[in-house]
Formats: sequence, structure tokens, C-alpha cells
Amino acid sequence: MDVHTGMKGISKEDLAAAHDADLAIEAEEGVHFKHAWADPQSGMVYCLSEAPSAEAVRRIHEKTGHPASEIHPVPLSV
Amino acid sequence: MDVHTGMKGISKEDLAAAHDADLAIEAEEGVHFKHAWADPQSGMVYCLSEAPSAEAVRRIHEKTGHPASEIHPVPLSV
Repeated sequence: MDVHTGMKGISKEDLAAAHDADLAIEAEEGVHFKHAWADPQSGMVYCLSEAPSAEAVRRIHEKTGHPASEIHPVPLSV
Repeated sequence: MDVHTGMKGISKEDLAAAHDADLAIEAEEGVHFKHAWADPQSGMVYCLSEAPSAEAVRRIHEKTGHPASEIHPVPLSV
């Protein structure tokens, strides 16, 4: 799970465009971005991916111009 | 999306028990907890729910003994 802050006012189109940009190059790092959720009011965005490492996620998000504020592996889920 | 901090060392069983406790009473507030993801190393837990309000989520998590550190409505998703 990675978290972006400071995305206040993000639109559905912005979110889709950012997600599509990640999907376009994610294979370079063996990452797959599965979902993203955004709160335009607070500017928080959460992205869930399957990835070999947090670093791999960090590199994809940096290349596509929206670096993550935090990246946390989430090995447990229900 | 709500976030819990300070859950270092959480186990798969702990996460499942907490989630089940939420599911058991979520209808009181018209909430449905869909997924939760945890990082035992950093102690971060993320919960995704459908809910009428952040306050409704806050009340369920408080009643089940694991208050959320942050709750952000996420009206946008991909």
C-alpha cells in the first residue's frame, strides 16, 4: 500500500490518468497496481499493488511523476 | 479508507479477529468493512469500507476496541 498526500482537488480523470501511466510501465519493475482510492478534499491517495519490493513501487511512481509519500508492505490481508 | 497506527507485530489471526469484530456490529451504523491490509513491521493497518460517513466508521472501530488514527472518505477509485 502506498500513500500520496497533497493531491487536493484530484478529479476522477486525474486519478485514472495517473493509474494508467503507472500501468503502462509497471512491468519494468514487476509491479502490478491493482486499485487506487482518492479523497479530493484531503488530498490523500492510496494505491494497492502487488510488487517485489517497496523500492520497485517507489521507482514506478517516481518515473510517472507522482512520488509516493509512504510505502508500506502489507503482507497480511482479510 | 481508515488507517490504524501502532499495530506492530499484528498477526494474521489478530487482523482476522479485529475484522470479524467489526463485521459483527457494522450493521448498527450501516457500514460494511470490505478489506483490511496490515504491515506487522511498521504497525500500519488500512481498512476499506463502504459507509454513510467517516463518523459511522469511527464509531464501529471505537466500539470494537481499535480506534482509527485517520479516516478519509475516498469517493474516487480506479
